[in-house]
Amino acid sequence: MDPTRPIDALNNARNKKVIIELKNGRQYVGVLRAFDIHINCVLENAEEREKGEVTRKMGIIFIRGDTITILTTE
Amino acid sequence: MDPTRPIDALNNARNKKVIIELKNGRQYVGVLRAFDIHINCVLENAEEREKGEVTRKMGIIFIRGDTITILTTE
Amino acid sequence: MDPTRPIDALNNARNKKVIIELKNGRQYVGVLRAFDIHINCVLENAEEREKGEVTRKMGIIFIRGDTITILTTE
Amino acid sequence: MDPTRPIDALNNARNKKVIIELKNGRQYVGVLRAFDIHINCVLENAEEREKGEVTRKMGIIFIRGDTITILTTE
Amino acid sequence: MDPTRPIDALNNARNKKVIIELKNGRQYVGVLRAFDIHINCVLENAEEREKGEVTRKMGIIFIRGDTITILTTE
Amino acid sequence: MDPTRPIDALNNARNKKVIIELKNGRQYVGVLRAFDIHINCVLENAEEREKGEVTRKMGIIFIRGDTITILTTE
Amino acid sequence: MDPTRPIDALNNARNKKVIIELKNGRQYVGVLRAFDIHINCVLENAEEREKGEVTRKMGIIFIRGDTITILTTE
Repeated sequence: MDPTRPIDALNNARNKKVIIELKNGRQYVGVLRAFDIHINCVLENAEEREKGEVTRKMGIIFIRGDTITILTTE
Repeated sequence: MDPTRPIDALNNARNKKVIIELKNGRQYVGVLRAFDIHINCVLENAEEREKGEVTRKMGIIFIRGDTITILTTE
Repeated sequence: MDPTRPIDALNNARNKKVIIELKNGRQYVGVLRAFDIHINCVLENAEEREKGEVTRKMGIIFIRGDTITILTTE
Repeated sequence: MDPTRPIDALNNARNKKVIIELKNGRQYVGVLRAFDIHINCVLENAEEREKGEVTRKMGIIFIRGDTITILTTE
Repeated sequence: MDPTRPIDALNNARNKKVIIELKNGRQYVGVLRAFDIHINCVLENAEEREKGEVTRKMGIIFIRGDTITILTTE
Repeated sequence: MDPTRPIDALNNARNKKVIIELKNGRQYVGVLRAFDIHINCVLENAEEREKGEVTRKMGIIFIRGDTITILTTE
Repeated sequence: MDPTRPIDALNNARNKKVIIELKNGRQYVGVLRAFDIHINCVLENAEEREKGEVTRKMGIIFIRGDTITILTTE
């Protein structure tokens, strides 16, 4: 269960609710459906938050990996 | 139907209306006609929006992948 | 005629008048003569615009791909 | 014990409490569980600090390597 | 004479007077003596201009490609 | 003794006290224990300085190469 | 004597006094002892200048290539 590679931690988070934060300060919260080695990610039932406020609700969102700072489970 | 790779989510969005957001804050809305592994994208019947306002209408637009933060369906 | 790869859309735009926008906010308008996989582009009969105003006229201009955000036809 | 490659220093820090600092000024403190050659890192029992204040507590956090400036042991 | 690749346009500009503009807003004007696939360039009899004013005269100048936005002939 | 490659200069600095400066303006001073081709570096007995003031003392610090501007011996 | 590749111009500058300018606006002046294809450079008898003022004197300095904008001979 202990991840030995960072990508294992993403595998453990698949199909769970995660928070992804971007370099521009925005947060996207949703169920992690897919990711790749560039850390491009796809969230389902996503919502966008800015400064703690929900600013938008989205179905599926694709996030480009190079804009991501951190990913954590809620 | 469930994407296992992020690129699958883009494939599912092909020929649908999508919103692409750039690092500079602009949004482009249009029908996703093409994309590649760099996430370079082509939209048709595109319009540019800034802060929710439509600022321009365009036919075909090529968007360089490394300027993109997120892509979602409308 | 329908592009299946983004590079096809650039091929369709070759020898046509295009608008290229850069990360620094400038626009270059001219006839697209060449491009490569880095999206380095060459325009002919180019003019530079800033905030809608023509600021310079140029013959041939080489634009480095990594400074480009979007390319569209006029 | 003396690291001869930087990656050895990360190996020595595995399963120890570390501080990771990001380009955006945030600090993440937690137990280093995983890292890779891109310096993507996974911390467990993590907390986020901004200007010395704990701003959030998290279980597992994935940090994208290209946002990291330094990593040190507490 | 018509460039089919952007690098051809640079070849056509070799040994001619060119203007190179950088991401930091500076211009370098001089005779293009060399360039490579990274768009690293060497100018001879170069002068630096900022906001239209000549700020320095230089013999040979090496410009790192990734700082360049555009190159045009004077 | 004369370095013919930049990496030789780093080899000469190994196990000596060096100053590393980052893009964010911070300085790290310590004994250079390890580095790699990305210029990722490890310092021992490190201290952080900001505007000439010592702001923190650290044991071992890993510095990500792409945040470094210069490295010099004290 | 005429450089046909940019790297030739650097070879011609080896063991001569050069000025290197960084993206952060600083200048480093010294004898160019080494460089590589990333344009990582090593200067000897170096001094740092900011806005024309000498701010520091250094023996050997390693400069990371991706922070460099231009290099010229004094």
